[in-house]
Amino acid sequence: MIDNIEINGTYIETYEKPPSPVEFLRNCVQPNRPAVIKNAFSHWPAYNLWTNEYLREKMGDSIVTVATTPNGYADAVTYDPVTDREYFALPHEQKMTLDRFLKIIEGKELTPHAHYISLQNDSLHTEYSILKDDIEEEIDWCSAALGKKPDAVNFWMGDEKSTTSLHKDPYENCYAVLRGKKTFVLLPPSEYYCLHEQLYPSAIYTPSDESNGATYKLTPLDPPMKTPWIPVDPLHPDLERYPRFQHAKPIVVTVEKGEMLYLPALWFHQVLQHGDEGVIAINAWYDMDYRNILYPSFGLFRNLLLGGDNNEDDDSE
Amino acid sequence: MIDNIEINGTYIETYEKPPSPVEFLRNCVQPNRPAVIKNAFSHWPAYNLWTNEYLREKMGDSIVTVATTPNGYADAVTYDPVTDREYFALPHEQKMTLDRFLKIIEGKELTPHAHYISLQNDSLHTEYSILKDDIEEEIDWCSAALGKKPDAVNFWMGDEKSTTSLHKDPYENCYAVLRGKKTFVLLPPSEYYCLHEQLYPSAIYTPSDESNGATYKLTPLDPPMKTPWIPVDPLHPDLERYPRFQHAKPIVVTVEKGEMLYLPALWFHQVLQHGDEGVIAINAWYDMDYRNILYPSFGLFRNLLLGGDNNEDDDSE
Repeated sequence: MIDNIEINGTYIETYEKPPSPVEFLRNCVQPNRPAVIKNAFSHWPAYNLWTNEYLREKMGDSIVTVATTPNGYADAVTYDPVTDREYFALPHEQKMTLDRFLKIIEGKELTPHAHYISLQNDSLHTEYSILKDDIEEEIDWCSAALGKKPDAVNFWMGDEKSTTSLHKDPYENCYAVLRGKKTFVLLPPSEYYCLHEQLYPSAIYTPSDESNGATYKLTPLDPPMKTPWIPVDPLHPDLERYPRFQHAKPIVVTVEKGEMLYLPALWFHQVLQHGDEGVIAINAWYDMDYRNILYPSFGLFRNLLLGGDNNEDDDSE
Repeated sequence: MIDNIEINGTYIETYEKPPSPVEFLRNCVQPNRPAVIKNAFSHWPAYNLWTNEYLREKMGDSIVTVATTPNGYADAVTYDPVTDREYFALPHEQKMTLDRFLKIIEGKELTPHAHYISLQNDSLHTEYSILKDDIEEEIDWCSAALGKKPDAVNFWMGDEKSTTSLHKDPYENCYAVLRGKKTFVLLPPSEYYCLHEQLYPSAIYTPSDESNGATYKLTPLDPPMKTPWIPVDPLHPDLERYPRFQHAKPIVVTVEKGEMLYLPALWFHQVLQHGDEGVIAINAWYDMDYRNILYPSFGLFRNLLLGGDNNEDDDSE
């Protein structure tokens, strides 16, 4: 019955300019298909303004939250050699001045760790509110299409050391790359079964006393908490452990400076970043339309596989 | 996980005028929700022109196809007392002049049977092409929203004797009532499980030789063919035979003259009609967007329940 459905799992639409609200709804949101959109935000002052010099001048002394890990994997399934177990690893949330963060990214302060500004929860209007007039508050054609304003606008800054592991969000996501480039490995909700999501005990990176904070150890959460997460690295899958991934058809797309990715709700995404002096992005999260059958369908598939209720607290990038 | 989704199974949106293409996509098509739309076609010449007198004048001598059954149920699960079996019963497709059809509907020719002009497959452009300039070729806001033209525009005329049994179509359906009124009993695709669809041997009504054609008998198709169909009458459900229907939440909506129903793809619908001198409707079928997860999700549910491949040839009203 579904044999004749077009196999378009490896294709991504590119728009030379923002689609009209109707086009966007019809060809992106409704069919839940990603797209790359060019020339969507070249008019934002931030596009030219946001050099490290400018950022220092505006808020070099501001204290910001930086996700810090020894390996660049925050919110990821991680093997801990100390306990010989796999954990869902949360980052150490380090507070530092933006100036210090920039020095680390610029290589002027050497560190064995990976540092990533990935605070979320509308970080543009909290820690980065001083920068908010440098961009538009909302993506106008997206707001017109969805009939709502974004729930959150986030500021992201990091470097090649940090990777966001495969996960999904219940948001329509417009992701604008302002500096450097970002590679997204995308998988549709229908390929959930291929991703071997499992429950992992949660642990958080904490500076180790013995090293005077120079190294981190994984500390299980107390009280213990299990988090459903995807263990597969889609670019280097361990097919012996995760054989169903052989049937997955990831779309790999590199979003260049000046391009925007429309990342549809519930699509799985891994995110890598490339570029000297820091990769900067802004993303707008619009709450998904829960009236669409996509949400309950996905919930059904997931519960069939995982069983019972699961921690749904998996909002990130 | 889905406990907090709004239960809106018994609600139908009403628009006082046609929605904009964006509104229509966002609030009707994408969430797959029906709506009643007023003032959508009062500018069609047909709205005032299509009296029986006018229809006779334009095409009284034209030969038209009329679905004829002894009980008003064409394309419905029907108990046959002769063989003591249930069949999926196809109507006798009778050819007659439109003038004769109108006489039957007007009660000037008495008949024990039910007669329904329900030819479909773009009947406005085949048997009723002489009337096509009396309406607009497409629903402009719907075409703009969906980015396509209708696959078919159909002319319907019948009376209270004929009912269309519960079924679904893979089309976005704009259904305009031009005379009389039609009652739609609507059920969302997600309630498929409650409807007890089963496979039935197919049979066709044929005039019986013994009665000189005055009565009909059910003749099984040769070669035999099975058709998946829904046996439940949603307004008078036999809950002993079809207990899952007790969980269904039908929306019952009567569409008055001058109103249009947006009937979303894959929604189950039973249709009744009321009015003297014939109930007339025009509907436009727009192919559904198969990129939407609705189609494969529904196919999965259906195959889980019915098993294997099934005859998908269930396009009607």
